[in-house]
Amino acid sequence: MTARIGIVGAGLIGRAWAIVFARAGMTVSLYDVDSSALDKAWEAIRQSLADLKQAGLIEDVKAPLALIQTESNLQRAMADVEYIQECGPENVEAKRDIYSALEAVVARDTVLASSTSGIAASRFTDHLRHPERCLVAHPVNPPYLVPLVEVAPAPATSEAAVNRSMHLMEQAQQAPILVRKEIQGFILNRLQGALLNEALRLFRDGYVSAEDLDKTVKHGLGLRWSFMGPFETIDLNAPSGVADYGQRYGPLYREVDRQRGDDDPWDSATLAALDKERRERLPSQGLAERQAWRDRRLMALMAHQRSVTSS
Amino acid sequence: MTARIGIVGAGLIGRAWAIVFARAGMTVSLYDVDSSALDKAWEAIRQSLADLKQAGLIEDVKAPLALIQTESNLQRAMADVEYIQECGPENVEAKRDIYSALEAVVARDTVLASSTSGIAASRFTDHLRHPERCLVAHPVNPPYLVPLVEVAPAPATSEAAVNRSMHLMEQAQQAPILVRKEIQGFILNRLQGALLNEALRLFRDGYVSAEDLDKTVKHGLGLRWSFMGPFETIDLNAPSGVADYGQRYGPLYREVDRQRGDDDPWDSATLAALDKERRERLPSQGLAERQAWRDRRLMALMAHQRSVTSS
Repeated sequence: MTARIGIVGAGLIGRAWAIVFARAGMTVSLYDVDSSALDKAWEAIRQSLADLKQAGLIEDVKAPLALIQTESNLQRAMADVEYIQECGPENVEAKRDIYSALEAVVARDTVLASSTSGIAASRFTDHLRHPERCLVAHPVNPPYLVPLVEVAPAPATSEAAVNRSMHLMEQAQQAPILVRKEIQGFILNRLQGALLNEALRLFRDGYVSAEDLDKTVKHGLGLRWSFMGPFETIDLNAPSGVADYGQRYGPLYREVDRQRGDDDPWDSATLAALDKERRERLPSQGLAERQAWRDRRLMALMAHQRSVTSS
Repeated sequence: MTARIGIVGAGLIGRAWAIVFARAGMTVSLYDVDSSALDKAWEAIRQSLADLKQAGLIEDVKAPLALIQTESNLQRAMADVEYIQECGPENVEAKRDIYSALEAVVARDTVLASSTSGIAASRFTDHLRHPERCLVAHPVNPPYLVPLVEVAPAPATSEAAVNRSMHLMEQAQQAPILVRKEIQGFILNRLQGALLNEALRLFRDGYVSAEDLDKTVKHGLGLRWSFMGPFETIDLNAPSGVADYGQRYGPLYREVDRQRGDDDPWDSATLAALDKERRERLPSQGLAERQAWRDRRLMALMAHQRSVTSS
């Protein structure tokens, strides 16, 4: 049977999730309290689907569009869905209210998943009668181009809710991972943060320009990471695998760890210097065009990955 | 005029450099004290060139092969080259001896560049009469598939030597970056280390499996990093660019920085647990085949990148 998905909030993330689920043949009920947001969402979804078709990533625009309904009444929107992807404001109180309202209108075993990038699920679900069906399913923006989803249960979350969410994400052609215990920033942003913290220090202390730092990743580190990840990369970089690698390179990386400063890599002077170099290369008025370029490159990369993994 | 390149050491890195320079139409004199190493290098170079041709990355095998000569006599090998890529043992004393021997046979302005991944150039060149033409040009393995080269001068290195090296690397279709001051691990391995240190802690502390951590990067972070780098990524991830991004996400990443432990992420128990999970997914006897798969994926990715950037 086809899954029936509810989405709460028709902003950037909600719209993008509607594409993910409808593209996989699931019916989508997209809710927003603001019906003008729903109108805007329609247009944006139509455009994104057209872009995906042009990039060869979907065959048809009409079929997924036909699976999406919009609705500004919560009860009508969510009455018969089996999984809800909540995309409300990043604010604990607002989320607590949304979850109370959802619990009042959905079936007892409907999974309630939040798109939050920063708030642990327990903080906005511990007042519910059935917190066991709640968790975080954190996407990367936009999820129809970047497949990773971090499934992050609270201590109260049931194994059944976790399994149903992981399974649903796989059915939707996403790449779910399990964050086994609640932790700030989940996995992706902690890894990104660790690299950015070091990157900002190297830039701030004059070892490298911002442009050359980006080159180091895009022409070096990022190539293998885009299809293997960091552990498999080092596992294949020493004759006997990762333990052997640790013997060889552990001492260097321990030093890098030991040399970390206690200063703030995100101080305003560093950010201003970085912004200055970036704006010299890309003036503010060019940002939107470059974002469109990024999305085209992402689409081309996904099409490439599909062609290599299917051959 | 075509550049004339000398390479010292015919091991894995020396062979790979021979391919890089010859592919770009430069003549290569490949030296090793051990002539059986030179025979092995020939076979390996021929095979790698055939692989590159099959992947559509070079048009012809014969032309680059014809530009490579091997030689086990240092003076004959290096008499008339203008740039030397040294690929000797990772050992300060051995390198000091090699540089003394090189200085005795080369022209006064021949650039002497080391492939070392870990030793600052000043440590093995400060005894020379002309240390100003010495620096590090650190590749990623293999350099004919991963274009980044870290050009890292010593305090004594002349600007002319830096400029000639950067220019030569660009002519050779590599992607050189400048490491402005000597620092342990240069840029790439410090960034890799920062991410790996956090990754090992998350794995060790039970937040995520090694497989899911790799997925987080390969299906999430690594996609944009493979064509933009981390600074451009965040610059495009907030409406007004990187300074705006810092306002929004700086607090989270500061917390990640603050929460770093003082423990050793590379301790043997963590490495053993990681090795266990990796060997369950990929037994030791499968490592070589997976390395060949990695190289095919890298070649396909480079061909993809070429097709997107030229269109």
